[in-house]
Amino acid sequence: MTPAEFSPLISAALAKLDYGQSPTELYEPIRYIMGLGGKRIRPLLTLLGAHLFTDDLGPAIKPALATEVFHNFTLLHDDIMDQAPLRRGQPTVHEKWNANVAILSGDVMLVRAYELFFDLSPALLPTVLRRFSQTAAEVCEGQQWDMNFEKDAEVSIPRYLDMIRLKTAVLLGFCLELGARVAGASEEDAEHLRQFGTDIGLAFQLRDDLLDVYGDAATFGKRVGGDIVSDKKTFLLLTAQAQASPSQQLILRQHIGQPVPDAEAKVQAVRAIYDELHIRPQTEALINGYFQDALQHLERVAALPARKEPLRQLALQLMERES
Amino acid sequence: MTPAEFSPLISAALAKLDYGQSPTELYEPIRYIMGLGGKRIRPLLTLLGAHLFTDDLGPAIKPALATEVFHNFTLLHDDIMDQAPLRRGQPTVHEKWNANVAILSGDVMLVRAYELFFDLSPALLPTVLRRFSQTAAEVCEGQQWDMNFEKDAEVSIPRYLDMIRLKTAVLLGFCLELGARVAGASEEDAEHLRQFGTDIGLAFQLRDDLLDVYGDAATFGKRVGGDIVSDKKTFLLLTAQAQASPSQQLILRQHIGQPVPDAEAKVQAVRAIYDELHIRPQTEALINGYFQDALQHLERVAALPARKEPLRQLALQLMERES
Repeated sequence: MTPAEFSPLISAALAKLDYGQSPTELYEPIRYIMGLGGKRIRPLLTLLGAHLFTDDLGPAIKPALATEVFHNFTLLHDDIMDQAPLRRGQPTVHEKWNANVAILSGDVMLVRAYELFFDLSPALLPTVLRRFSQTAAEVCEGQQWDMNFEKDAEVSIPRYLDMIRLKTAVLLGFCLELGARVAGASEEDAEHLRQFGTDIGLAFQLRDDLLDVYGDAATFGKRVGGDIVSDKKTFLLLTAQAQASPSQQLILRQHIGQPVPDAEAKVQAVRAIYDELHIRPQTEALINGYFQDALQHLERVAALPARKEPLRQLALQLMERES
Repeated sequence: MTPAEFSPLISAALAKLDYGQSPTELYEPIRYIMGLGGKRIRPLLTLLGAHLFTDDLGPAIKPALATEVFHNFTLLHDDIMDQAPLRRGQPTVHEKWNANVAILSGDVMLVRAYELFFDLSPALLPTVLRRFSQTAAEVCEGQQWDMNFEKDAEVSIPRYLDMIRLKTAVLLGFCLELGARVAGASEEDAEHLRQFGTDIGLAFQLRDDLLDVYGDAATFGKRVGGDIVSDKKTFLLLTAQAQASPSQQLILRQHIGQPVPDAEAKVQAVRAIYDELHIRPQTEALINGYFQDALQHLERVAALPARKEPLRQLALQLMERES
């Protein structure tokens, strides 16, 4: 099996999952959110991680699906907390049903994610479950920090980076580590892959911050400047606030956290400050730093270069994506 | 160690649990709800289940705590869904903090409950985790049925009994089965104990329904008649609706599901119908039926009668409780 076949394999395996039937209010929302699609990056990383060390991907498939079910559980509960009306262009579960249904369906999804690990060999199971649980708790910590930051007057850049590490990056790192462990990799290789995935996750999230401001409206899925309009404390804004001159601070304060009479004017004013402060190249430099770190970890993994190539390609795609 | 020492042991072990520190908004609510107390019946059942077969309770302690953390996770999320202002006389987590904090803290509690199983031997871990996950999903199913029943015009008695089995009884059954499995009991003994616990759970919940109407206001913790005032579809109401004469049906319809000008009059009118239909002895007969079934399962467990006695006593206490 070649990496090009992994995505269809994941889609087919996901389509066969049985979450439960009755009551329908509990299980239909799970099928709904899992059916909304997405890139299925997490199970793909798990399979690519396993494929570094083995041709037998069988044992990695259900654990790979676990990461996707878990990820969608976090989306489901986060959407309630963020009062998000849409997810992938469709109504969120709490909008289509209600918040109670969304809470409870999410709870069962977390249980189902755990269940997808239980066929692992008894030798692997405790370590994998410990690492998964630690990662799951960290993702919740990241979401709580993210909510806290909305109210906090001051958020330092290291704390912001730690938030996106917890909320987004550690799960990507876990997916790769998981694949490696299931395929019998050494502790050292599993750890290098975890760090590769975490670095890629940080770069991926920073790319997201960047695309919001500098993305092409035609290819970027969301409205360009949405983070600026909603006063979101992104890496770009926090860096600008840290580096702004007194007159630039004044302009930022006139726009950030203020009612918006003209959203377009706000986006332009803030982006002008970003441009003056060279926020874009600074962000790109940080993204590239994480990317280089990631590649060094991948380099150190004891696997054939040809097997690593799809991971390097995927990382590159995530870095250079325009949407 | 004697069963009288189990409760202090559980309290001490619970007090030592480390759920996490930062962010405080995530972990403080867990310490808060776990600190509200309660009878700690579930870990007690686990230890009593283990004690049937072994004197070495060490390996059962963390799994026993898992059941209590899981139970409190369900309370935390149920309280959001039920918009309950109080839990054990104190503000609920979503009241003291907010719903988002309550959702996310609950999610981490479920993860922490799983973690408390991971020290089990690799030979036991997969089976225990499969059974725990099945039970956890069933508890969620029970909660969803309970919410559905609030809106359903007709709820049959078998469906009501199935709802309380899922929402309350299966977890008590699991706790006993868990203790037995950790202590190396046979599959057959684990199964008898599971059924003993499930029967006791059903009887316990029916006792709750009964106490709401026929409890002594002085000893019953809640307001007597609260279920009647809130039109709750309890075993008593569903049985009365199924057995009422046309004139009694009319009186029930005048009171149930109607705005309440005089709550006391409503309670008295509905209770009068219950009395005419002998709902109390019918309920007591069903409770006693479950209790006898439970004892038969306990009887068949291959353990010393002296070891079973504390379980029989605890079951009797739960049956005869007045609050």
